[in-house]
Amino acid sequence: MEKELIFGHRNPDTDAIGTAIAYSYFQNQHGYNTEAVALGEANDETSFALKKFGFEAPRVVKTVANEVKAIMLVDHNEPQQSVEDRDQVKVTHVIDHHRISNFATIDPLFYRAEPVGCTSTVLWEMFKEQNMEIPANIAGIMLSAIISDTLLLKSPTTTDIDKEAVEELAKIAGVDYKEYGLELLKAGTNIAAKSVEELIDLDAKSFELGSKTARIAQVNVVDVPEALERKDAFLAAMEKDAKANGYDLFMLVITNVLDSDSEVLFIGDDESKSVFAKAFGKELVDSEAHLLGVVSRKKQIVPPLTRAFEA
Amino acid sequence: MEKELIFGHRNPDTDAIGTAIAYSYFQNQHGYNTEAVALGEANDETSFALKKFGFEAPRVVKTVANEVKAIMLVDHNEPQQSVEDRDQVKVTHVIDHHRISNFATIDPLFYRAEPVGCTSTVLWEMFKEQNMEIPANIAGIMLSAIISDTLLLKSPTTTDIDKEAVEELAKIAGVDYKEYGLELLKAGTNIAAKSVEELIDLDAKSFELGSKTARIAQVNVVDVPEALERKDAFLAAMEKDAKANGYDLFMLVITNVLDSDSEVLFIGDDESKSVFAKAFGKELVDSEAHLLGVVSRKKQIVPPLTRAFEA
Repeated sequence: MEKELIFGHRNPDTDAIGTAIAYSYFQNQHGYNTEAVALGEANDETSFALKKFGFEAPRVVKTVANEVKAIMLVDHNEPQQSVEDRDQVKVTHVIDHHRISNFATIDPLFYRAEPVGCTSTVLWEMFKEQNMEIPANIAGIMLSAIISDTLLLKSPTTTDIDKEAVEELAKIAGVDYKEYGLELLKAGTNIAAKSVEELIDLDAKSFELGSKTARIAQVNVVDVPEALERKDAFLAAMEKDAKANGYDLFMLVITNVLDSDSEVLFIGDDESKSVFAKAFGKELVDSEAHLLGVVSRKKQIVPPLTRAFEA
Repeated sequence: MEKELIFGHRNPDTDAIGTAIAYSYFQNQHGYNTEAVALGEANDETSFALKKFGFEAPRVVKTVANEVKAIMLVDHNEPQQSVEDRDQVKVTHVIDHHRISNFATIDPLFYRAEPVGCTSTVLWEMFKEQNMEIPANIAGIMLSAIISDTLLLKSPTTTDIDKEAVEELAKIAGVDYKEYGLELLKAGTNIAAKSVEELIDLDAKSFELGSKTARIAQVNVVDVPEALERKDAFLAAMEKDAKANGYDLFMLVITNVLDSDSEVLFIGDDESKSVFAKAFGKELVDSEAHLLGVVSRKKQIVPPLTRAFEA
């Protein structure tokens, strides 16, 4: 069978990379010839998970049409989050847990999305539906993806299915998920060693909101005041990045993974700022706002912003 | 739980109506509160299947926002094939077997598509994955949908999964699927009693192909020459309908369900005609072409046309 590449979104996180690895295993068991790759380097958290379960980081690719005719996507579908030459290949499979937007195919395809906390949760259901055994290391990387995406089952995106998946996968992987989960999340919060330019790009995604192009980046921390010591530098870097890439607004979500609140830094024109206020019922003060209980870009940030921009 | 409506595409066929009924049963078993409805009257074939398995035709709706806030779709996703006020409600679930095009949501959703012959085949897999029992009448209507969409397993869209589904569902429904299948298909081929205006609208769908709006209608027959006796009337009706609705081209696919070939009538501008020739390697002669072995709009007509229009 002709080779296909499997990958998650740009600026990959543990779901994008971990689920690509696990889905590649799943598909190869079904007779496909796939390789998990990534659209960027593994971040600190993902590297921690890969090492823990004995995986090498997937090969990083910038384009795909130069090596394959067909691809499978995990954890994303929107083109601006995907590989730049996607329109030159055929998407045959997608598993995801996001909204569907600007995604189109010429032919029928396999598409499986569910409103659950993590793509690996959907994949876990697929393993179970087919009574397939999950190897311990694959279970470990899927577990890591779910812990990462749900902030150890505390994000409001978390469903009962995610919880069930975490418990079962932890057993197979042979880890205490609470203990391992905290280690994993903390591995991703070491921001001191990173420049503001790196931090605003590490987990950043672009969205079309109404007629605006928005960039929304998220950084996980355990110490918000430490992050805000560099507030002016963050804002300057966001301004520069927005200008260079044509973003109408740039929002940096600094999430405390221990207490599940977020501090937002925001730049954009006056209209965008007033839309922000409408979306969250909260005015920006000095380009900043505290969003109580908000940790999920997918569920708590993009939908209210989309509605407010389209209203 | 708040009520949701489930329905298939406009100009519903046996898959659109049958799968809506079966999926409503499936979802209600899972605690949802759903009603299967339809975006048009059941055609002759569908009516035959409904009667055979003891169902009333679903209520026909023109709009949905006046009665529910959320809906579930089967057998389609493209907006021009859906209910006209879809943008005013939330799509929570989709099961389908078509390409994805111009479909977008604000929130994550449940989306399940597979490149198989019929939406009921996907639903059959879902019943099996969850070890759910399928009542005999539900099995019968799902069987009818698969027979209809795959032309009794002869369409090139047919997969091994469709065949397996048909065999299992026929057992549950207690029918000989070959015998019943021929009866069902023949029930949909009685074109003599219908006007050309009815026939070009019965199973017609709109597509955006490149920058063109295309209308592609399909009629199943057992006697192609009988249908072509009304060729001039068909072409005139297609011209009129295209003009009234702004279609750039209108294609009527007259499919012989016994030998699995199609005769095509085509109207459109010169560019569209030359794109047709490029797509099928066949010139139109007097607005007509014979397409050997072509029976599937989804797999054998829309993709080559899309590629040719976008080239």
